[in-house]
Amino acid sequence: MLNYGAPLDRLFQALADPTRRAMVERLSRGPASVSELAHPFAISLPAVVQHLQILEASGLVRSEKVGRVRTCRVEPAALRPVEQWIAERRQIWEHRFDHLGEILAAQAEADRQSQCPSTHQEHEP
Amino acid sequence: MLNYGAPLDRLFQALADPTRRAMVERLSRGPASVSELAHPFAISLPAVVQHLQILEASGLVRSEKVGRVRTCRVEPAALRPVEQWIAERRQIWEHRFDHLGEILAAQAEADRQSQCPSTHQEHEP
Repeated sequence: MLNYGAPLDRLFQALADPTRRAMVERLSRGPASVSELAHPFAISLPAVVQHLQILEASGLVRSEKVGRVRTCRVEPAALRPVEQWIAERRQIWEHRFDHLGEILAAQAEADRQSQCPSTHQEHEP
Repeated sequence: MLNYGAPLDRLFQALADPTRRAMVERLSRGPASVSELAHPFAISLPAVVQHLQILEASGLVRSEKVGRVRTCRVEPAALRPVEQWIAERRQIWEHRFDHLGEILAAQAEADRQSQCPSTHQEHEP
């Protein structure tokens, strides 16, 4: 088991808010200034900046200030730990279901074999 | 764009806590009673129950009480919206980087073509 810690907490926390997900969705299509990013949301600029700080702390977004304009962009690699955690769960589940399938198939075969002789015995005098 | 709402909020929120992720990891390997689930954690049973309620509200875990024992199990299908949201972002990012690659390749070709005639002209009398 890999050692996941606070980074995963911060990533899932960052993605747990619809405004922050919408910001990631917007930035997925290309970099944007903070005011461009704030534009579609009916929230104050300080609230946008606070959401951005949470996104930056998670590593999902980084920003750079040139002159008076701060430009934000996504960091696709930052999502890797989330993808990896989910893929590991999926792998364990699928393995379990495959194993369950084998058990059920073996059980069905055992039932079939145990039913045949008993059916045969019932017909015996 | 698909309409994601509160379910994604609840899923990401549920996964933002290391104890809750550890519970999902434990249940990924098979069903467990609440006390079995609580065992590895140095937290009170009420705290475990509270984490379980958040996991159940997200749909990731369901529980059933038979007699005095409540058994918990994971619901792998519940993770689908998270997987889908991430896959959509990944797809947009990769498309953008493919497109960027095409632009850079076209630019490199344009540079090569613009350099060749000028080099040729320099050697002309």
